[in-house]
Amino acid sequence: MIKITFPDQSVKEFAAGTTPMQIAESISPRLAQEVLAATVDGNEWDLSRPIEKDAAIKLFKWDDAEGKHAFWHSSAHLLAEALQELYPGIKFGIGPAIENGFYYDVDPGETPIKEGDFAAIEAKMMELAAKKEEIVRKEISKADALKMFGDRKEEYKVELISELEDGTITTYTQGSFTDLCRGPHLPNTSAIKAVKITSLAGAYWRGDEKRHQLTRVYGITFPKKKMLDEYLALLEEAKKRDHRKIGKEMELFMFSETVGKGLPMWLPKGTALRLRLEDFLKKIQRRFGYQQVMTPHIGNKLLYVTSGHYAKYGKDSFQPIHTPEEDEEYLLKPMNCPHHCEIYKWQPRSYKDLPLRFAEFGTVYRYEQSGELHGLTRVRSFTQDDAHIFCRPDQVKDEFLKVMDIIFIIFKALDFKNFEAQISLRDPNNKEKYIGSDENWEKAEQAIVEACKEKGLNARVELGEAAFYGPKLDFMVKDAIGRRWQLGTIQVDYNLPERFELEYTGSDNQKHRPVMIHRAPFGSMERFVAVLIEHTAGKFPLWLTPEQVVIMPISEKYNDYAEKVAQELEMRDIRTTIDNRNEKIGRKIRDNELKRIPYLLIVGEKEAENNEVSVRKQGEGDKGSMKITTFAEILTEEVEKMINQW
Amino acid sequence: MIKITFPDQSVKEFAAGTTPMQIAESISPRLAQEVLAATVDGNEWDLSRPIEKDAAIKLFKWDDAEGKHAFWHSSAHLLAEALQELYPGIKFGIGPAIENGFYYDVDPGETPIKEGDFAAIEAKMMELAAKKEEIVRKEISKADALKMFGDRKEEYKVELISELEDGTITTYTQGSFTDLCRGPHLPNTSAIKAVKITSLAGAYWRGDEKRHQLTRVYGITFPKKKMLDEYLALLEEAKKRDHRKIGKEMELFMFSETVGKGLPMWLPKGTALRLRLEDFLKKIQRRFGYQQVMTPHIGNKLLYVTSGHYAKYGKDSFQPIHTPEEDEEYLLKPMNCPHHCEIYKWQPRSYKDLPLRFAEFGTVYRYEQSGELHGLTRVRSFTQDDAHIFCRPDQVKDEFLKVMDIIFIIFKALDFKNFEAQISLRDPNNKEKYIGSDENWEKAEQAIVEACKEKGLNARVELGEAAFYGPKLDFMVKDAIGRRWQLGTIQVDYNLPERFELEYTGSDNQKHRPVMIHRAPFGSMERFVAVLIEHTAGKFPLWLTPEQVVIMPISEKYNDYAEKVAQELEMRDIRTTIDNRNEKIGRKIRDNELKRIPYLLIVGEKEAENNEVSVRKQGEGDKGSMKITTFAEILTEEVEKMINQW
Repeated sequence: MIKITFPDQSVKEFAAGTTPMQIAESISPRLAQEVLAATVDGNEWDLSRPIEKDAAIKLFKWDDAEGKHAFWHSSAHLLAEALQELYPGIKFGIGPAIENGFYYDVDPGETPIKEGDFAAIEAKMMELAAKKEEIVRKEISKADALKMFGDRKEEYKVELISELEDGTITTYTQGSFTDLCRGPHLPNTSAIKAVKITSLAGAYWRGDEKRHQLTRVYGITFPKKKMLDEYLALLEEAKKRDHRKIGKEMELFMFSETVGKGLPMWLPKGTALRLRLEDFLKKIQRRFGYQQVMTPHIGNKLLYVTSGHYAKYGKDSFQPIHTPEEDEEYLLKPMNCPHHCEIYKWQPRSYKDLPLRFAEFGTVYRYEQSGELHGLTRVRSFTQDDAHIFCRPDQVKDEFLKVMDIIFIIFKALDFKNFEAQISLRDPNNKEKYIGSDENWEKAEQAIVEACKEKGLNARVELGEAAFYGPKLDFMVKDAIGRRWQLGTIQVDYNLPERFELEYTGSDNQKHRPVMIHRAPFGSMERFVAVLIEHTAGKFPLWLTPEQVVIMPISEKYNDYAEKVAQELEMRDIRTTIDNRNEKIGRKIRDNELKRIPYLLIVGEKEAENNEVSVRKQGEGDKGSMKITTFAEILTEEVEKMINQW
Repeated sequence: MIKITFPDQSVKEFAAGTTPMQIAESISPRLAQEVLAATVDGNEWDLSRPIEKDAAIKLFKWDDAEGKHAFWHSSAHLLAEALQELYPGIKFGIGPAIENGFYYDVDPGETPIKEGDFAAIEAKMMELAAKKEEIVRKEISKADALKMFGDRKEEYKVELISELEDGTITTYTQGSFTDLCRGPHLPNTSAIKAVKITSLAGAYWRGDEKRHQLTRVYGITFPKKKMLDEYLALLEEAKKRDHRKIGKEMELFMFSETVGKGLPMWLPKGTALRLRLEDFLKKIQRRFGYQQVMTPHIGNKLLYVTSGHYAKYGKDSFQPIHTPEEDEEYLLKPMNCPHHCEIYKWQPRSYKDLPLRFAEFGTVYRYEQSGELHGLTRVRSFTQDDAHIFCRPDQVKDEFLKVMDIIFIIFKALDFKNFEAQISLRDPNNKEKYIGSDENWEKAEQAIVEACKEKGLNARVELGEAAFYGPKLDFMVKDAIGRRWQLGTIQVDYNLPERFELEYTGSDNQKHRPVMIHRAPFGSMERFVAVLIEHTAGKFPLWLTPEQVVIMPISEKYNDYAEKVAQELEMRDIRTTIDNRNEKIGRKIRDNELKRIPYLLIVGEKEAENNEVSVRKQGEGDKGSMKITTFAEILTEEVEKMINQW
């Protein structure tokens, strides 16, 4: 008999050689049906793999990341098995689970895989899944593995095996398909009830563009047909909300090949929106004691050699600008922090001056490959809502509390109701790999944990996930259709103060090194606006939206009155346009509702006579007639309530 | 006898061979004393050079640019004569008049010229001037000129002569000094009554750094001793107002060699000031129908090849960023216009959409040599308050009127009371060198002239001063100590719309080319802030200054109350700091007055008890005690009056 310990610390006895699946069955038939993966003493473990000695076990279901991962990993094998039947002579690269589904990189040989084949591939996968094929793990020697895959002319697998150590090689087989794989996998294929092959892409073998280009087949599977339907509906909804599409419709931003790929150009309405966001944050930050600074978009290469960014980003950046006359090299800045360190160093600082909080909407640059560029979310230049807090070690907790306040204000004003947080701490067994004193780390880690507790924030704690230069707190938001986006990181940094030799004079009259905290609640203006577009489907909150009001005269006769209304509203900083196209009023209403305008004002004879407007509110319809000033007050109050709620 | 026509079209007869000086004497002895230069039929003419036939004459005095120019040009010769006596073996390069004085580039041979020699040089110049040496013009052949300067081993002059055409060579001689020179000059040296040698610099012969480095000796002279004293007092005052000095004292901006020379970093107080200026202009521009856009700081080199900027600025710019992976070249942008043209092209435009006014605080880059960098006025990156108006030809006048309104609002809000304007038009005899149709040029030129007339602006009209791509209107302001700064150009452009093939659909349903107007009232934020600092000596208008109020508790006991006052003021967006240093109140007042703070608030027991503050206003002293809210209202009203005066 062996002792099995469960996550709640309860212990049960089982016969040696019992599998996690058998353990699940012993608990309940329902659990046995739902369980997808397990860990044994922290190691990933097939559900059908026997446990031979005392151990701690964890079981994972669909809602756990580990459960989905095993499910999709096995689905990748199922895809491979199907492809092997449909494309004789096909050779296999690698086939991992990914965030949403899985892919397999294949070399299909003479018959290319086409989008038209997707239905057949899906059908074949479902046919094989229904066979309830067992997925069998086997440990084999390197020599045997090389022979097995060599015989089958699987040159890609052979290359991978040749780099492995002997004694650690496993294969998984289901039906006629055997893969080189570390696992873990589902016990059999029957849990896979629904499949969608989603797309094809080219992918260089091992990411090296000098090597053979394989075909990457993407797919996703589910344990229930209904879940696939929901997923496809979500995809459809996501497509409707695609920020590139809405950004164009709402005239927010553009790209020009002539200017350069991945370099966003903000159109007037997008600029207004972005500036409104920036002003909103600036106002909050001013109240929280931040000081706005402005630094150039370039810096001498030596600056980034000092900071270490050149070593880290140099290769992926735009290349340096060499100036032969004075033999200098300048880089488009990869980060704003070095500039802020130089500002810190501009004059001697005392402990009384701290914390100093330098904020900047600072633009940074990455040379992304053109194929990887995507709307505003993957660009070559983006503007961070950056700030660096220079403080004493005893101020870290208070600063975390304040930054969290800012982040919560933003989430509230922008209607992100669902979010999660994660605290990333040191690996306690590996302390020597981190920079900064033990005392400061302990102080900072404790400060973060306590700050979260004080805010009532239920943050997940991850050991070993801290950067080498400091612990951090991350926020993830869920958008309106359930997708998760990382927004807002608060990062402690012991490294840059060291590299730039930053100092302050303490109350003891000695020199001390300040702690640096990086934070950017929006992340970047580009990415944040993209997320916001997709979250709101372009129906931005009233305070933010570029066009708050469209005035629609019912005929040309009332254009002058419309102009008068517009002027009165503009004087009160209400963003107003006039739709004086020669169209029927119904058409104007439809068009402007499509443009997601919060308030539509209809003006005709009655309104002009009484100094009134007829109001239609987005999502609520007709609100009747009222005086221009009354309408202006209602709107202004609505805006004030949203942005001054803090 | 010959007929001499005067500028007022009156005509007098003189004997042939009469000189301009004799003509001046015939009018009045006073004029003869004051006249410094003349033109005869539009050609520069020595006062002592005979006129042989009927001609139109103009006489110039000190207040005319032409008068000063001749005075300083003769002074350069006087300097050379003095140097020739003091530094035997000295060789001469060139010695022109400049904006404020003159210089001579010399190769002093074995004895270098030092600052300690200035007094001796000045004394020698005054000694020679007092001799009333005649300055004698002589036409000589190229061969004779080469021989004369060759004999004297004047290698630099010989090089210049060898490039001249025969028959056009003149020399001027006074005392022992003869120079190769086109003139014109004063009749003799006696008018020069005061001299100051101001500085030395190195200057490569013909500006070519591969050639010999000469010593440039700068000086300035005046016809009256009192004028020199006034000039030196002005220099002293300018030194006190040096924006680099005040910028440091007021903590407005900094430079870091590590970040890079000539790359300004705006400190918190400078950033606040700059943003306030930007917000002020943004607000005005919004009311005037401008649309703010944002474009990247870089662009593909091809964009600037298309615009023609690469040909013009390529050599003086930061070199292109070459990206080997995708074989692209990017440039830090030399100008914002190409990006705005791309935005214009983003969608088809109709005559009804025009004018479109795209505004951007757009940063541009120049690779200035490090020796030429100077504070914020000569930098390697600067941000223009740029805008481009795309309009129909018939809208040019209206747009000029509107831009002039904006410029006048700015001048008023920033207390620039004195300014001049210049209209630069085509050379009517040389129309073929300009781009754009004759009709459009005439329309635009007329529009500018009419717009100035409507605004009651007495603008000087200069023919032939227009750029090849369009006419323009320039504004020059005089600062508080009388220096002139160019601010605000309104430039018509027919070139870029052509190069970018911009179009709009006219009411005739045909394609037309829009007119483009460039304008930047501030010019650049960097240079403008520098001018503003030197104009105001750092005493910025209340609405603009970074620190409006400093609260000074009379002892530590009242720090909490000071904090409370600060919070109340901050809530009303009044920029407030607390001076809670452990210093006597008198010291705090002095220090903060030195920092040019508009309002100082003193708080002690009485104030804390009554919710009051004791107010000291810059330049006005003690204003007594008042409630916090009363003070806030007074200040807010004062600000509103200044920025909303339009």
